[in-house]
Amino acid sequence: MNFAMIEAAAGRLAGQARLTPLLNAPLLDAAFGKRVFVKAECLQVTGSFKFRGAWSAVSALPAGTRGVLAYSSGNHGQGVALAAARHGLTAVVVMPADAPEVKIANTRAYGAEVVLYDRATEDRDALGAALCATRGLVLIKPFDEAQVIAGQGTVGLEIAAQAHDAGVETADVLVCCGGGGLSAGIALALEARAPGLRLRTVEPVGFDDMARSLLAGERLRNAQTSGSVCDAILTPAPGELTFPVLQRLAGPGIAVTDDQALQAVALAFTHLRIVLEPGGAVALAAALFADTTDPVICVASGGNADPALFRDALARFG
Amino acid sequence: MNFAMIEAAAGRLAGQARLTPLLNAPLLDAAFGKRVFVKAECLQVTGSFKFRGAWSAVSALPAGTRGVLAYSSGNHGQGVALAAARHGLTAVVVMPADAPEVKIANTRAYGAEVVLYDRATEDRDALGAALCATRGLVLIKPFDEAQVIAGQGTVGLEIAAQAHDAGVETADVLVCCGGGGLSAGIALALEARAPGLRLRTVEPVGFDDMARSLLAGERLRNAQTSGSVCDAILTPAPGELTFPVLQRLAGPGIAVTDDQALQAVALAFTHLRIVLEPGGAVALAAALFADTTDPVICVASGGNADPALFRDALARFG
Repeated sequence: MNFAMIEAAAGRLAGQARLTPLLNAPLLDAAFGKRVFVKAECLQVTGSFKFRGAWSAVSALPAGTRGVLAYSSGNHGQGVALAAARHGLTAVVVMPADAPEVKIANTRAYGAEVVLYDRATEDRDALGAALCATRGLVLIKPFDEAQVIAGQGTVGLEIAAQAHDAGVETADVLVCCGGGGLSAGIALALEARAPGLRLRTVEPVGFDDMARSLLAGERLRNAQTSGSVCDAILTPAPGELTFPVLQRLAGPGIAVTDDQALQAVALAFTHLRIVLEPGGAVALAAALFADTTDPVICVASGGNADPALFRDALARFG
Repeated sequence: MNFAMIEAAAGRLAGQARLTPLLNAPLLDAAFGKRVFVKAECLQVTGSFKFRGAWSAVSALPAGTRGVLAYSSGNHGQGVALAAARHGLTAVVVMPADAPEVKIANTRAYGAEVVLYDRATEDRDALGAALCATRGLVLIKPFDEAQVIAGQGTVGLEIAAQAHDAGVETADVLVCCGGGGLSAGIALALEARAPGLRLRTVEPVGFDDMARSLLAGERLRNAQTSGSVCDAILTPAPGELTFPVLQRLAGPGIAVTDDQALQAVALAFTHLRIVLEPGGAVALAAALFADTTDPVICVASGGNADPALFRDALARFG
């Protein structure tokens, strides 16, 4: 896993992924007393950065590949489904039965076959491995996979260029963190292209395995894997590939509460006019409510929000 | 009013206005059976295209100008307020007392003095003229003003380039229409840069003065000026400067219902992850629900949505 792979992934993504804008808002800056730049990956194809990694991985498969399999709480599955469809490949997506309905429906609409499992009683890795073996599918892991990390790293290439254009050379870059694929990819891109920008991971309180692991110097697990509105970024532990990268390059991790994430959803609605799901809003929440540099850059990573949950966020904080 | 003024405005807007993305969504296209491209001006500075015209007009004022005045249901006022503040000028914005609270609050937050009036009993033009006379302010009209039209026309320059990049050379370009400033500016830009793209105006049913005027060959008034959720685009009649441009260049106008506009708000939430106000969603509504070309391009013109109204749109159509 190195910077050259990110550059190669950027070449394969050209014309497929969208160069998403780096937004900011005068009234938001004024309200919080710092300049906040928001990389709007909710505007990415399929509504999250996950399409980048999915396309990067699928486009790197050898000729003759029959199909792919992904296990995903939603956004990775949608990215893999669309990337596979555009390559003419079968896609099977293994999803928890309690994933938001809109994500299950959309994954099917992108052409994938969806297999549901019980998050509490079944092991998705074992289920996925069995399906791969019996049907000849190639597993596309959600984060601990070099080509996926390389694809997510293209977000970092864009941030480096856009921050430079905005006159920002020194800042924290806050990134939501599940297994760490997006964070590791961005960290590697920034190391090469914008060494004054320092990556920091953001996780929900109670699911801050990466922050604790970075402090401890070893990979630690979360005590639980459900129980936050930030369903998109709940993973059991840092990845094997991602952790060493972040150990070398990331600053201290940040944890935010569910209410802070929902407040960030409402503030993004009002000031940035973008739709974020709670897991996609944690880095914005950290930019607004945690101690960071001024200016600060954050990645708004996904916008596949459940309408009822979004209405509640607006009712409480809009 | 000519194309050279639009090019000049684009030069003054560089570094101030945002080049907004031309979005599209595979699942939206599949659901409606045509390719729909959405120019996301809700992501513009201050949340609507109005900032372009405001900046264009304010930046063209002679040295020694003391301040500016705008009368506006909201978005034009916010654009003028910020443009004036960044030029170090006083801004007074005359707004209807029943404008959405968020727009009044934001106009003040951008640094403007807000003067409220009663839409039913007071004449905003007379009130504005009196304030200009007593306080030495220059009126920045919302649409019937050449430098404002020139600024809005920069949307058309971007659409011409982005459509070309997307391989679209022939299509309807649907644009929400109040007084016609955005439509006239875009029409002039497309005439020069993308002659295969044909502008069509979109208005709320019952407020389709422009569509009826284009058919009649003369400027006709609306019977009423309130009573639609699309408050941002309710104007009494086509402009004197804008109408001849559209008479020469626009195709047949389209009218959409309030419910179609609200449904477009919900579809933009789900598929594009952008926040639209109802008046900013009428062109998307027309793209989805009216008879148009395939592909079709539409301008999503503003995103300063009232949270309660947005929640209702999601509850009904999300």
